[in-house]
Amino acid sequence: MKILEDRIQSEGTVTIGGILKVDTFINQMIDTELMENIGEEIVTRFSNLGITKIVTLESSGIPFACEAARRLKIPAVFARKYEYVTLDDSIYQSRIFSYTRKKEMVIRVGKGLITETDKVLVVDDFLANGSAAMGLLDILAQSGADVAGVCVVIEKGFQKGREKIEGKGIRFEALVTIDSMENGKIEFRK
Amino acid sequence: MKILEDRIQSEGTVTIGGILKVDTFINQMIDTELMENIGEEIVTRFSNLGITKIVTLESSGIPFACEAARRLKIPAVFARKYEYVTLDDSIYQSRIFSYTRKKEMVIRVGKGLITETDKVLVVDDFLANGSAAMGLLDILAQSGADVAGVCVVIEKGFQKGREKIEGKGIRFEALVTIDSMENGKIEFRK
Repeated sequence: MKILEDRIQSEGTVTIGGILKVDTFINQMIDTELMENIGEEIVTRFSNLGITKIVTLESSGIPFACEAARRLKIPAVFARKYEYVTLDDSIYQSRIFSYTRKKEMVIRVGKGLITETDKVLVVDDFLANGSAAMGLLDILAQSGADVAGVCVVIEKGFQKGREKIEGKGIRFEALVTIDSMENGKIEFRK
Repeated sequence: MKILEDRIQSEGTVTIGGILKVDTFINQMIDTELMENIGEEIVTRFSNLGITKIVTLESSGIPFACEAARRLKIPAVFARKYEYVTLDDSIYQSRIFSYTRKKEMVIRVGKGLITETDKVLVVDDFLANGSAAMGLLDILAQSGADVAGVCVVIEKGFQKGREKIEGKGIRFEALVTIDSMENGKIEFRK
């Protein structure tokens, strides 16, 4: 997705810890026109599959999950990473390791929100080691829902996430794939 | 907003702790058609004011902030409630008390994302005691931005939030106001 690559190249920065910072248009401030383009691209790649719900993880995936779901006229669901007062015992949960937070977290979705009659697309902002995506897929497996695929906005192609997802026989799409960020220089996959 | 009142009346539940649970359409699963209606209503109430950004707090306010911002063709910004790896020292921050989490939290926005040239509308899913909204207004005061108002989807009208906001001379709008949830019975303001 050329406009997204251009934007990352011009505004993204690589921190000393090797984290890609895209806070000005994806991650804390959201360029809503770009959000529309991203939603459109997600829907184009997963059209005519009978998807009934889009699932993401709070917080940064929510704008893109909601925009794609809005275009498909279906609901979006976000798994909670943090304790929340209305989550009771009737939940699916999975343990993930957050590399950006350097700790284990439990992600949770209310049981009534995803069922075995659903066909679900997983959407997130980033894929790196795939821990969050694998946690969401674990929750979807518990629910009995069918999985249409996983679509992320930005893939770090030099990490293992895609391999893990495709290794489960699940379709994976990234709107852009970064092959290297060495010395702060961002290189996209051709 | 009649369709929202009807939906809350039919699907919302009041927990024993007095929390309104709207997880099936607002809070964990998002009905994206309702999200469009909510975005439209927010934009109608704050039209022709020259708003340049919408600001919310992660996570549940994000869908409505982004949808209203999309319609206004402006960016949405969410304050972070949780530690995040790309947040450095160049931030505005404010301390809030979360009643749903029963603890103090620090909310943060990167300094570059809101400036004194901005005119900002604050959007959130709920207003009760107004701690989150007051924290966002504190951050906006630090940034020097002009505040167009605060708009929430659901106001608990029997708590003090609105009083605090209007007490600062800031315009407040709620799409629906609940006057009572006693004995689990939800009563809306006429």
